[in-house]
Amino acid sequence: MSLEIEKQVKLLEDQLKQLQGAQAKDQISIIVFSGDLDKVLAAMIIATGARAMDMEVKMFFTFWGTTMLRDKNKSPKGKDFMSKMFGFMLPKGSTKLKLSKLNMGGMGTEMLKGLMQKKNVASLEDLITIAAELEVEICICQMSMDLMGFKKEEMIDYPNLKYVGVGTYLADAGESRVQLFI
Amino acid sequence: MSLEIEKQVKLLEDQLKQLQGAQAKDQISIIVFSGDLDKVLAAMIIATGARAMDMEVKMFFTFWGTTMLRDKNKSPKGKDFMSKMFGFMLPKGSTKLKLSKLNMGGMGTEMLKGLMQKKNVASLEDLITIAAELEVEICICQMSMDLMGFKKEEMIDYPNLKYVGVGTYLADAGESRVQLFI
Amino acid sequence: MSLEIEKQVKLLEDQLKQLQGAQAKDQISIIVFSGDLDKVLAAMIIATGARAMDMEVKMFFTFWGTTMLRDKNKSPKGKDFMSKMFGFMLPKGSTKLKLSKLNMGGMGTEMLKGLMQKKNVASLEDLITIAAELEVEICICQMSMDLMGFKKEEMIDYPNLKYVGVGTYLADAGESRVQLFI
Repeated sequence: MSLEIEKQVKLLEDQLKQLQGAQAKDQISIIVFSGDLDKVLAAMIIATGARAMDMEVKMFFTFWGTTMLRDKNKSPKGKDFMSKMFGFMLPKGSTKLKLSKLNMGGMGTEMLKGLMQKKNVASLEDLITIAAELEVEICICQMSMDLMGFKKEEMIDYPNLKYVGVGTYLADAGESRVQLFI
Repeated sequence: MSLEIEKQVKLLEDQLKQLQGAQAKDQISIIVFSGDLDKVLAAMIIATGARAMDMEVKMFFTFWGTTMLRDKNKSPKGKDFMSKMFGFMLPKGSTKLKLSKLNMGGMGTEMLKGLMQKKNVASLEDLITIAAELEVEICICQMSMDLMGFKKEEMIDYPNLKYVGVGTYLADAGESRVQLFI
Repeated sequence: MSLEIEKQVKLLEDQLKQLQGAQAKDQISIIVFSGDLDKVLAAMIIATGARAMDMEVKMFFTFWGTTMLRDKNKSPKGKDFMSKMFGFMLPKGSTKLKLSKLNMGGMGTEMLKGLMQKKNVASLEDLITIAAELEVEICICQMSMDLMGFKKEEMIDYPNLKYVGVGTYLADAGESRVQLFI
């Protein structure tokens, strides 16, 4: 009979191990679809806050969100006409993003930035620097890059910036305890 | 003593089985609230991508999102005045959706569609066809149908289209590994 | 040998207990970032629906979302100039929120409200009352309060209203089975 029990215990061990392996990691996965200053700020505050609590953080910038990652000082050559036009129409980096509401020709956006400074809230540029220091992982949607006609050489210098597809996002999201679409 | 052990092992087996039953499925649950072309595209790309990776996919179209599922060739009779007005003001199907940004009187939307074709990105109409083939499950919020005054006979022919309430969404979301609100 | 088995069973029990402790609660965590009537309605419908299904519900109102929680009958004194201006420009409570689309100078919003009444859909004000009765937990982002210049004494009377930071949100979200950003 004790042999029988041994078998059962072995089976339990295996099942338990399998269950442990399937648990979500202490990780948050954030799609940043929006390029609005307010929404991007929310995403970066959540991301850096999560790292401060020792969660792993994976951010996926797609569509309008990719504009936050453009470097205003870089101007890549050799773009076709459409890419140049999109490049001109879309915000060139974090300092150019606008509020989704109350922008009022830029006045609302400047008001908010002034308030943030006054209330000692980190600016978007500060948050990007902090995110890099805290090792927030930033991925950019390759398809969005293609559609917008952005080139890798016009994006900001961020440690381990990756260009990925939806499959990478889904794999990471599936392992994460928390997922957001912003 | 071996009887004691047997009892303990039996208890462990029961608890393990319970835990296994409570695990999230390899399933993604997406609320499509938005009717903006860009956001709906993101939702459909994630949905079809997830099916390609063998995840189950449950989409819940609500509010403006329901407009993607209208069939531009169907015109139901017998609507009251308000329903007719809403029906007139809201986009009639996937080809009529507009970008949330840079629409510029439709020019931006056409530009994006042109780019997608050029870069071999599947159009929204293609993605809906692919979703049907891959058995992405689409549910429509019944309350939104009532509010917008939409009738079932004006929606697209999609396999197993379901009309459900928030309870169905919550039950599915609670079983899913990933949940998004788009 | 039976001693060996006893040890193994003890180890399994410990691991199982740990795994049980790490399971997500039957809880939904919702960030309400938007102050648009349609999105806030969606959030409140999901929240009250989840409570009706006995899920725990934690809502975090941030940025424009905080405006839903202003009390139109309260006018706090002693605000500085910027806070007064923001207070004037932002909607004062649930009855002042507008649709994200088809607002048409308020006409679309009134149309929707009329339709909701006609179709017996609970109004936003009803949903807030129901949420309070069902013990939906509402937290407000303290940083948003500071930025918008809102004071606690101008917010609605809601049971156990809490003012919290991003850390509290992340701790709750990490324990939740479902998380949404609206």
